[in-house]
Amino acid sequence: MPKNLGKDSTCSIARALDVVGDAWTLLIVRDAMIKGSTRFQEFRDGLGIAPNILAKRLSALVDAGIMARRGYREEGARVREEYVLTESGHGLSLVVGALAAWGRTHRPHPDGISPRFVAERTGVEAELAFVTPDGELVSPSELSAGSTLDLRSVS
Amino acid sequence: MPKNLGKDSTCSIARALDVVGDAWTLLIVRDAMIKGSTRFQEFRDGLGIAPNILAKRLSALVDAGIMARRGYREEGARVREEYVLTESGHGLSLVVGALAAWGRTHRPHPDGISPRFVAERTGVEAELAFVTPDGELVSPSELSAGSTLDLRSVS
Repeated sequence: MPKNLGKDSTCSIARALDVVGDAWTLLIVRDAMIKGSTRFQEFRDGLGIAPNILAKRLSALVDAGIMARRGYREEGARVREEYVLTESGHGLSLVVGALAAWGRTHRPHPDGISPRFVAERTGVEAELAFVTPDGELVSPSELSAGSTLDLRSVS
Repeated sequence: MPKNLGKDSTCSIARALDVVGDAWTLLIVRDAMIKGSTRFQEFRDGLGIAPNILAKRLSALVDAGIMARRGYREEGARVREEYVLTESGHGLSLVVGALAAWGRTHRPHPDGISPRFVAERTGVEAELAFVTPDGELVSPSELSAGSTLDLRSVS
């Protein structure tokens, strides 16, 4: 991770990348979110990741408040820990959805699969998009970008 | 980058992370998108990044079709190259916007700044959100996720 940015940075993107600016970390979050993986062995099998790297990334996700440890016990076995997404972790669906949309469009693959997000209440599929307060969708090529303070002081 | 995933993966997220699963890469894209940086020295000054790392990341972005090289000449100087986002690069505004939204909400900072995306035609600010085809906004906590094939065969 870039040293002079990260958690003390004023930039919200740099603060996010301080925690999730790593491919393995985002793939672990993806598996938790899309496949419902919770157990060490599920992540390991699903990702083909080395156990020491997986253990390190899961601990970092817990330290960052993106996942929480929870005890479970299989019949006749001792209590073990599994990993579940917190509210902050579920908030990463924006990032996971954005990566999937970009990969689907700009890195197409004949057998490509992507996460789909469905509104729980209605069962209708929802797409990630830029939307104005009037509900108008704006495509990325029609946007211009700038940066502003997150909290504007009121005088 | 995880070895058994990446560009040949069927998962659109893994294919995206194969290219942008690196904090420096996304910070370079951020500076191009938000600050309008194009020149080597601008990226270097803006990010405090070592020149050899910056050169390597810019080349990878060009190879991936996210940036393109363009010649420019300052008065009395030789022609140099600058780096501009391609259409595929501008498409990463989804990812940059998602990281910013997550960082702003889950890693707040008293002096935090975030990118703002404005519809060029109307000047109205657009927010990244999950939207159904009916135009209903759905918050991440009201979504359930699964995965499907990108191209569904029609028989």
